[in-house]
Amino acid sequence: MDLTHLLLTLILILAGAKIFGELANRVGQPPVLGELVAGIVLGVSCLKIVNPDAEVIVFLADVGVIILLFEIGLATDPRELWGAGGQSLAVALVGLALPFAGGYFLTLAFGYKTHVAVFVGAALAATGVAVVARVLGDLGALKTKEGTVILGAGVIDDIIGLIILAVVRGLATGGEVSAATLARVTALSAGFFVAALVLGGVFARRLVWLIEKTRVRGALIVAAVGFALLWAFGASVVGTAPFVGAFAAGLALGRTRKYDAVAADLKPVADIFTPIFFVKIGAGVILYYLNPFEAAYRPVLFLAGLLFGIAMLGKVAAGYAAWGRGVNRLAVGVGMSPRGVVGLIFVDAGRRAGIVTDDLFGALLLVIAATTFVGVPLMKLAFGRRPGDKIPPPSSIVIGTSAPAKRNAA
Amino acid sequence: MDLTHLLLTLILILAGAKIFGELANRVGQPPVLGELVAGIVLGVSCLKIVNPDAEVIVFLADVGVIILLFEIGLATDPRELWGAGGQSLAVALVGLALPFAGGYFLTLAFGYKTHVAVFVGAALAATGVAVVARVLGDLGALKTKEGTVILGAGVIDDIIGLIILAVVRGLATGGEVSAATLARVTALSAGFFVAALVLGGVFARRLVWLIEKTRVRGALIVAAVGFALLWAFGASVVGTAPFVGAFAAGLALGRTRKYDAVAADLKPVADIFTPIFFVKIGAGVILYYLNPFEAAYRPVLFLAGLLFGIAMLGKVAAGYAAWGRGVNRLAVGVGMSPRGVVGLIFVDAGRRAGIVTDDLFGALLLVIAATTFVGVPLMKLAFGRRPGDKIPPPSSIVIGTSAPAKRNAA
Repeated sequence: MDLTHLLLTLILILAGAKIFGELANRVGQPPVLGELVAGIVLGVSCLKIVNPDAEVIVFLADVGVIILLFEIGLATDPRELWGAGGQSLAVALVGLALPFAGGYFLTLAFGYKTHVAVFVGAALAATGVAVVARVLGDLGALKTKEGTVILGAGVIDDIIGLIILAVVRGLATGGEVSAATLARVTALSAGFFVAALVLGGVFARRLVWLIEKTRVRGALIVAAVGFALLWAFGASVVGTAPFVGAFAAGLALGRTRKYDAVAADLKPVADIFTPIFFVKIGAGVILYYLNPFEAAYRPVLFLAGLLFGIAMLGKVAAGYAAWGRGVNRLAVGVGMSPRGVVGLIFVDAGRRAGIVTDDLFGALLLVIAATTFVGVPLMKLAFGRRPGDKIPPPSSIVIGTSAPAKRNAA
Repeated sequence: MDLTHLLLTLILILAGAKIFGELANRVGQPPVLGELVAGIVLGVSCLKIVNPDAEVIVFLADVGVIILLFEIGLATDPRELWGAGGQSLAVALVGLALPFAGGYFLTLAFGYKTHVAVFVGAALAATGVAVVARVLGDLGALKTKEGTVILGAGVIDDIIGLIILAVVRGLATGGEVSAATLARVTALSAGFFVAALVLGGVFARRLVWLIEKTRVRGALIVAAVGFALLWAFGASVVGTAPFVGAFAAGLALGRTRKYDAVAADLKPVADIFTPIFFVKIGAGVILYYLNPFEAAYRPVLFLAGLLFGIAMLGKVAAGYAAWGRGVNRLAVGVGMSPRGVVGLIFVDAGRRAGIVTDDLFGALLLVIAATTFVGVPLMKLAFGRRPGDKIPPPSSIVIGTSAPAKRNAA
């Protein structure tokens, strides 16, 4: 592809992401849903402008997801993990286990192989914490009991979800799943994450010291992005998922005194790169496979419908794992139900590994999108407010594609 | 290339650019020289890590130069053109004409074809205004008579230089140069620039209006970068140089009330992208051709030496086109002598068009680097201060890779 062609592609990706993101925002949905739709419009199903397998687009999208998870890591305050104590942990674990188990067995029952079922189960597991944090902020419920439990559980979800993804990716390359492979890959992924965090902490402090000694322009943002890319590269070399490395790099750098400066400089860079990832995902959807009049594709749609039910019920049930007094357990469960970034990354990784077939890919995206589409209005109901009751101030609306803009919004 | 390979390449480009940029800064030279050296170290001559013709690297570098010229356009205050009145215009025109004519005839005399000679002449023409502005700032001479004349002439230089580049590129694709082609391409390039400016002004105001109505995160930076890419795309479609479009887009957006917000958001994005361009240029240098013990390559080195003399003398002579009372004409001439971004873009475009051969490419980069390397200390002498006399405050040292960070530093 020549420069002219690539320029136009990039322009349309950015413009489409913002236009559809804005439309999604106007109907009370997270912009990331709009970006997926922009991808579908620009992708293989409709305009065929964005080829989700072109080398440059794939690389830009990869950098996009690395920067996105670096930003999420940066905005994640590990102290929030302990905010609601064991309740968050219980809600997170039940909320991961139920959708995973349900998705896994259901997919097996439809005749898919083990590693496909593992991917599908894993894709349904993690809560979309950025979306949830934003809705909680809009509802003024961030500091409520339910809000604290949900955010704590969401952070745990993200971390465990990413490790599950690394494990599942590792298993995918190894063919059939054995107990020995599972143990090895889990140890590798969890080990890498811990090592990346510890080494990252040491490295991040030295990096901050070094940045303060430099005089050239851009040292801070280049060092921060370079650090994220380096940790992603390390993950890739070790054989685990690059964005797990980027997330660990973000967590490490988020605990240094340069946090504010890095977060401010990273924002516009993330604004440019991350929409490319979501548009690329949407671009791979083949709408044809979602045609219910085509008998051959009905089983996948039927499976998608059942998966949606499991995805919602699994999280709602997890809400009842909270034991605090006067906690609205239904609200906690409903608040965990919207899926987001991690689920999308799962589905994308599965497609690229050749495990999630094209028909299943579209169906899974539909399920993830539906959990948000239905989950967000349900949250408003469960928290005792109807949509439109409270018009949030503009400053609180302008939050992320998907990553939280401020630490306290995470 | 797979993700792991590309990630490592990008990490090394960014790290190399900052490390060598910092070293250059420490010895009183502009960081861009360090970035070229980083490219040489990483490129085809030494480590062979960065392949300057790989699709992803080429595209990132192209986006880098588009964003760089967008940023320069944004920081260019057209009012400065009239700051020193006709004196700046006279200095600019003489300073463009003499090195161009000298380079052109000298290259012809060495047996090269007409369109090669045109490229070489043009590459020597434009002053590196960002470098010059920075040194003037360090010397506290931005507001002196000489400083005003130099900056005004530098801005005119940039604009005319970019139009010359568009013309030369247009001629390059048409083979032999005829008067009719020259007239057509000049009309096209100048016409596009004027049209891009006028349309850009209208479009920029609508864009600002639209941005103020949007709620999604990142609308401002995505719209600004999208605008730059769109104008670059337009230039590319019309058949002129993409970065001319980006420069026009920057000039247009710089006159809107969103100037400050766009410039602030653009800075980290430019910090990531622009070093890739300069490292890529350095990566293409084949050091072997600069070996003076190899008889076959001596003519090119000899030509480079003469071109360097012409490049310096042409600008120094141009200083004497200033007619104001009490103006230090030598200081004006010396202050115009460092070449920069536009010259590098010329040489890069010539290489990609297959006109500037590999041996000539290295020699021309050497000439451009030498004008800065020698010009910067000469400026300090001509302005009556010796290097080290005055230690500039840290805040004024932290100026651009190449683009000025603030409007009043342009």
